[in-house]
Amino acid sequence: MREATGGRLDVAAAAAAAATAAQPMREATDQTRGTWLESIAESIQAAGPELIDLAIEETHLARGRLEGELARTTAQLRMFAAVVREGSYLEAIIDHLNPDATPPVPDLRRVLIPIGPVAVYAASNFPFAFSVAGGDTASALAVGCPVIVKAHPGHPLTSRRTADAVRHGLSAVGAPDGVFGMVEGFDAGVALVQHPAIRAAAFTGSIPGGRALADLAAARPDPIPFHGELGSVNPVVVTAAADSARGDELAAGLAQSFTLGSGQFCTKPGIVFVPKNSNLERALPESVPSQTAPMLTPSIEKGYAAGLGRIASHDDTEAVVPHRGADSPSVYAVDASTFLEDRELFTTEVFGPTTLLVRFDDEKTLHAALQALEGSLTSTLHAEPDEDIAHLLDELIQRSGRVLFQGWPTGVAVSWAQHHGGPWPSTTSAFTSVGATATRRFQRPVAFQDAPAGLLPSALRDENPLGIPQRVDGVLRPARATTVRG
Amino acid sequence: MREATGGRLDVAAAAAAAATAAQPMREATDQTRGTWLESIAESIQAAGPELIDLAIEETHLARGRLEGELARTTAQLRMFAAVVREGSYLEAIIDHLNPDATPPVPDLRRVLIPIGPVAVYAASNFPFAFSVAGGDTASALAVGCPVIVKAHPGHPLTSRRTADAVRHGLSAVGAPDGVFGMVEGFDAGVALVQHPAIRAAAFTGSIPGGRALADLAAARPDPIPFHGELGSVNPVVVTAAADSARGDELAAGLAQSFTLGSGQFCTKPGIVFVPKNSNLERALPESVPSQTAPMLTPSIEKGYAAGLGRIASHDDTEAVVPHRGADSPSVYAVDASTFLEDRELFTTEVFGPTTLLVRFDDEKTLHAALQALEGSLTSTLHAEPDEDIAHLLDELIQRSGRVLFQGWPTGVAVSWAQHHGGPWPSTTSAFTSVGATATRRFQRPVAFQDAPAGLLPSALRDENPLGIPQRVDGVLRPARATTVRG
Repeated sequence: MREATGGRLDVAAAAAAAATAAQPMREATDQTRGTWLESIAESIQAAGPELIDLAIEETHLARGRLEGELARTTAQLRMFAAVVREGSYLEAIIDHLNPDATPPVPDLRRVLIPIGPVAVYAASNFPFAFSVAGGDTASALAVGCPVIVKAHPGHPLTSRRTADAVRHGLSAVGAPDGVFGMVEGFDAGVALVQHPAIRAAAFTGSIPGGRALADLAAARPDPIPFHGELGSVNPVVVTAAADSARGDELAAGLAQSFTLGSGQFCTKPGIVFVPKNSNLERALPESVPSQTAPMLTPSIEKGYAAGLGRIASHDDTEAVVPHRGADSPSVYAVDASTFLEDRELFTTEVFGPTTLLVRFDDEKTLHAALQALEGSLTSTLHAEPDEDIAHLLDELIQRSGRVLFQGWPTGVAVSWAQHHGGPWPSTTSAFTSVGATATRRFQRPVAFQDAPAGLLPSALRDENPLGIPQRVDGVLRPARATTVRG
Repeated sequence: MREATGGRLDVAAAAAAAATAAQPMREATDQTRGTWLESIAESIQAAGPELIDLAIEETHLARGRLEGELARTTAQLRMFAAVVREGSYLEAIIDHLNPDATPPVPDLRRVLIPIGPVAVYAASNFPFAFSVAGGDTASALAVGCPVIVKAHPGHPLTSRRTADAVRHGLSAVGAPDGVFGMVEGFDAGVALVQHPAIRAAAFTGSIPGGRALADLAAARPDPIPFHGELGSVNPVVVTAAADSARGDELAAGLAQSFTLGSGQFCTKPGIVFVPKNSNLERALPESVPSQTAPMLTPSIEKGYAAGLGRIASHDDTEAVVPHRGADSPSVYAVDASTFLEDRELFTTEVFGPTTLLVRFDDEKTLHAALQALEGSLTSTLHAEPDEDIAHLLDELIQRSGRVLFQGWPTGVAVSWAQHHGGPWPSTTSAFTSVGATATRRFQRPVAFQDAPAGLLPSALRDENPLGIPQRVDGVLRPARATTVRG
């Protein structure tokens, strides 16, 4: 079953195959593509024990964590199957002829169609959920786009075995060749985003890597959308009242969150704004484990040490939990005034098990410090119920894509309402890479004007054979099954 | 009432004002912003006679055309007021706590928020509908984004007078300062797209101009979305059967469409695929007027002459209707084989009253010629009811954003289902600049996790005080008023 060279098709061959698959793929129904995704999920599940052993060896992540991640990955494939069957993702709109409008409206019907072959750049830190068969691949396949994955070099064997499972799942239910491909290596990654057949790209990784690929996408003769998730400091604000009421509990939660997965989460809380002389800061050292699991790759380990070195060597930082070597968690603290003076140093993400406490005197210095932040995927606000936090909340909304009011930002649910994206540099576009609406990245609208009914896609027919949500003459109509249930 | 310097605020001042207005603007309700748009529409309507006189003087467009365009512009402002009041544009999604999901789902609620201050680059060819108070401005203001317009130098007086009317309309209903600004001049345009306060840009114009600004947007330290509508050849296909059945009628329709507005429409049919020895080609000369209105600007007139020169000087082109000087319409013809040999020459848009007939022998040469085309805003297919055109239709869908089955592409209705966009180079993003969904360009999602009910935006509250459409636990619920009516 193993295709020895399958994972290393070169870009030109993979792109040609994807281009050929694009037509049969866009003609496949949502039902059919749903079946493909479910078959991929089954195939990955069947390969699960083997995949997990490979991933443990390549990533050093713990078995329990990887089992959870694999379950998330197959659930995600099944969720996108359900999303496309529900049909809202097509954004079907029908305007019947209206000669009285200014200007007159012909018979106009709009639907979203697949954008074409998609390049997916896999991440290092989630070898299943953000890698070969992760959310980018699942959402692109779901809406009818062939996918070519650029595998992450951090887990090549896991990637190849996953690619085999994807291909097996697809062929088991008769999907055309070329629907899925994988390439490896730095040069392949560069060539992929520039290949004429590629119509969009999705990426999860570092700011420099994502920026370089985004620049290549923008510099093409025909620029293409680049949906990158790059870097994020995920600010946390703890008000003085919250610190008084539950500083110890917050310290325990924070310690657990910033060391999870050895701090190698895009949603790791990297900057925590706390009042001066906080209970949280006092209690934190006890809660931080002395060691985490080894980091994913030597280059991430090196980056972690370099980032900490920059912070630790600053004259006015204090080591709350000093860094004791390779995989040791650490916590540093600075006053808000120092933070503002060296804004660029302190607001740069350090990928690994560390977090920075920024001590504020009062609400004014807190606001000034918040305004120094660039965009993040998340922000978290710990306040007490009777506090007026509207202004603080507005600041956080302006700087992030998900605001949490309890708990901690690590852990990203896969659901309809999820948004995993935020202002630059956390993502490069106003879309999510997690959750149902991730599909929209790989679609483009097309309108049919005065089309004969027989030539319309079924989503745009008056009789609505699939019973999907449609907006008809301005009125949104829910799915037919929903109407019956309601 | 006239603010003499109002139109020439420099970029820094306009951007600072817009940044200050962003907060009160995003806090204004949809009802309130709807009122602003309606007041702008009234103010423009009141200034109508003066605006039309200025526009006639500056653009040479006919009074009737300009009156129609002004009516379209005010109708468009009112449509966006209705769109935001309906509330679907917020894409409100509520997922209640679900501990049984893989992974578990917290209380998650997603809504679209305004992206921030928007730069709008006005077009030359629609001094009202795609200029200072056109669709870009209306849709950005509607969703809560301050707007700074870069005025087009082709109609400065019309622009300034429109800007005054916009400001008057806004201040009459108490909108905050800075909601709307205007700048003029090439340097201001360059500075605007690079200004840190600007969060998105919209543009209608030429490919070189749009590309230059898009490149600046992508090269910023923090890249921003650039929604440009650049150039489009708007292919038309006339099958042999359609030509036999109604070649004369099609010739008359085509002549009317490609000379409309002196051919200065982004949807002008620029390339028409016809069978060899077509009735259409034979009948066309009679239908083409000998003269159109003067062109908009000397530089457009120069570009028109240069584009025609390139085509006419090719050895294998034939003048069906020769170009007889400045404002004279013209038609050239080539065989499909020649068209393919000099693909780049013949597929380059010539802005002005001209169209190119491409003669095909059979379906095979037609398909080959179609595959040489880049993306267009529209494509048009004239066939007979009994023909099998599924494959032809698929080719056109892949190359455009709106497919017409009767009539001609000039004339763009403003409605829910309209899509005015297409693959590169017709637009730079997968969004429309005309119609209800144009709003999505200026929004970004934000999710609230475990938020206290009192801190949620009203669109995300369980009790749904505005009665807007919401997706709740995966089920799309229409607007409450709709449910009652239905």
